[in-house]
Amino acid sequence: MRKCYFDHVATNPLHPQVFKAMLPYFREEFGNPLSLYESGMKARSAIEDARAQVASLVNCKPSEIIFTASGAESNNFGLRGIALARQNEGKHVIVSRMEHHSVLNAARFLEKAGFTVTYLPADKHGVVEPDAVKKAITKETVLLSVTHASSEVGTIEPLREISEIAKEHRVVFHTDAVASAGNIPVDVKELGVDLLSMAAHQFYGPKGAAALYVREGLRIVPLIYGGIQEGGRRAGTENVPAIVGMGKAAELAHAEMDGRMGHVKTLRDRLIQGALGVENVYLTGHPAKRLPGHASFTVEFIEGESMLLLLAAKGICSASGSACSSKALKASPVLLSMGVPSSLAQGSIVFTLGTGNSEEDIDYFLAEFPPIIRRLREISPFAKGWDEKGEGNKCYTTPSPESQES
Amino acid sequence: MRKCYFDHVATNPLHPQVFKAMLPYFREEFGNPLSLYESGMKARSAIEDARAQVASLVNCKPSEIIFTASGAESNNFGLRGIALARQNEGKHVIVSRMEHHSVLNAARFLEKAGFTVTYLPADKHGVVEPDAVKKAITKETVLLSVTHASSEVGTIEPLREISEIAKEHRVVFHTDAVASAGNIPVDVKELGVDLLSMAAHQFYGPKGAAALYVREGLRIVPLIYGGIQEGGRRAGTENVPAIVGMGKAAELAHAEMDGRMGHVKTLRDRLIQGALGVENVYLTGHPAKRLPGHASFTVEFIEGESMLLLLAAKGICSASGSACSSKALKASPVLLSMGVPSSLAQGSIVFTLGTGNSEEDIDYFLAEFPPIIRRLREISPFAKGWDEKGEGNKCYTTPSPESQES
Repeated sequence: MRKCYFDHVATNPLHPQVFKAMLPYFREEFGNPLSLYESGMKARSAIEDARAQVASLVNCKPSEIIFTASGAESNNFGLRGIALARQNEGKHVIVSRMEHHSVLNAARFLEKAGFTVTYLPADKHGVVEPDAVKKAITKETVLLSVTHASSEVGTIEPLREISEIAKEHRVVFHTDAVASAGNIPVDVKELGVDLLSMAAHQFYGPKGAAALYVREGLRIVPLIYGGIQEGGRRAGTENVPAIVGMGKAAELAHAEMDGRMGHVKTLRDRLIQGALGVENVYLTGHPAKRLPGHASFTVEFIEGESMLLLLAAKGICSASGSACSSKALKASPVLLSMGVPSSLAQGSIVFTLGTGNSEEDIDYFLAEFPPIIRRLREISPFAKGWDEKGEGNKCYTTPSPESQES
Repeated sequence: MRKCYFDHVATNPLHPQVFKAMLPYFREEFGNPLSLYESGMKARSAIEDARAQVASLVNCKPSEIIFTASGAESNNFGLRGIALARQNEGKHVIVSRMEHHSVLNAARFLEKAGFTVTYLPADKHGVVEPDAVKKAITKETVLLSVTHASSEVGTIEPLREISEIAKEHRVVFHTDAVASAGNIPVDVKELGVDLLSMAAHQFYGPKGAAALYVREGLRIVPLIYGGIQEGGRRAGTENVPAIVGMGKAAELAHAEMDGRMGHVKTLRDRLIQGALGVENVYLTGHPAKRLPGHASFTVEFIEGESMLLLLAAKGICSASGSACSSKALKASPVLLSMGVPSSLAQGSIVFTLGTGNSEEDIDYFLAEFPPIIRRLREISPFAKGWDEKGEGNKCYTTPSPESQES
């Protein structure tokens, strides 16, 4: 049976060169980076090299990168660290409804801590409109968080326009770039963001290494207190091999970005075109402004988990939405906020492509997908009478190839 | 030149068997543990196996183990998570002055958040006296944190006695067992603790994997919000290889504990005896109730960092105190709280032994140590006239071999 890994937004396999770079730091150069002897100093210097590599990926200074252990930690640290640091200036925070759970739930924590939080809606393509941001800002607003790209529907947000509004109102602007950094160009200066979260395992780096960009001069309250690691802003013995791996993965992603993007975009477009050939399958997210390897759909009259399981039985790995909530069995709040009806949101499915995928993978998928959908509709209680409606392929949104940007 | 790694309390080299157990999870079984397809399920099952191994090391249920990324994170999570969960019952917290920075600084964070914190002193051996705990408890006390063993002076605290007092007053009891778990027997039931922090890289496991034991039924507020990982109590994509490594390291530590303890204790006793043969060198911490591989001293008329550097030049890796503050160049608060004069605390040095050390290492150290001390005293401004005092070897505390317990 063919194996098709189409879940790169959940996690990526480690790049062989990344693994090779990490190897010496497990057993030979295992010293604590704070130690004054040779193996400690080597570890410290390896961390600083990795910091420079990660900084280069997003166009900032190495001193503006704080290493953490996960994208979720970076998001929690960014939101709570800034809200706490600025609480005397105001206690209003804005986040979009397109955010990952780690942003949304960090915002809910802030609500419990006495902050007011505005949850910004998105349009039907999942775009957070700059005008909506403008309207939501009050004199009390200290922090705004809008994702760079949605892991669930792939939409890339207009951060540049939004950051201009944030700057004008002196609102600190955080973006969750976990799904985008390393996969599309991310330049903190061009985007105009003050904080940016990223995670190594999203671009063929290791799990357990992530980072938060914090613009120079911005005060942030730590999330993890303790020793003097990361300039006293994030305590804990550094996970040296993982940090070294993140650095190498950033370097490779930077160097190979155009080729990788071209490769996955070609495959994605073919996958989307083929999948939309199945009746009552709708693309979710923006038809053009989306991550190049990201194809997401709702399949009417079907429950997403069953689709996943039957695809998995054919060796095709996909997701029903965010991996972090895949066992929650609820309709995705992101899809609901975009106006997708709850019944349709139940049938959501996400395919995210990577460097290891081939045209043969897409062909295989396109041969297996339609019979699986047919079979599920035959047994599904949701599907009663679906084939009698004869409405044809009513796309929720349809990609227009001429307008595709990525 | 001989290489003597005597800084196992800073970090350990990865055990070859641990590394072998981790290997498949970097590239082959790289799936996200929340995914519904095979590689995700394998990762999930590997995490649950590791959870059982870690639980077995400290005698708790697997469901009572929450994986984190560092000892510092476990300590922050434990303290802040319980304080926040119980704040309606009272806002008083007690921590000892023997604690690691991650406990002390988490306590300071709680002070800023409106809690009152009592910092308990220790006696001259670094022992936190149960009576002092009893006296410090008020009706408002919701949380108590006392380390299991000090990483700086090696003293093992009387947790069992302290936990009885905590239980009596319905105070939740957390212990930082980062320096002890995996190195000496740690049984949460015998110790009577409600929460316990540990870190894999302290017992030949990987950096980036740690855990917090939380007694069943105890409510704790998350430190990192987001997805449903770790039962919704600690979000973030799991660092699967590191967690698998922690499980294997726990299993090995459990199986080999007696042998490992005997090995390092023999070497440690020889090191202590030899080092105390040098004039004006004093043992710190408890002479008997101390970690079996832990030897810590103050060397009068000497500045600790210079000692470290000259030892490092001879291939001997040691620490001046906690690695997490080793660049802070301040006298250790732990030593000061034990009544060590500030001038003497400047000359602190810690040697922590491991399975890879041999008698030859100790011989080599004992040959190199005295001339280094002599040389430093010759050039040190602190040392002026030290050799004229003729007070001989005034031990700060002296080990009495017949009373040694570990």
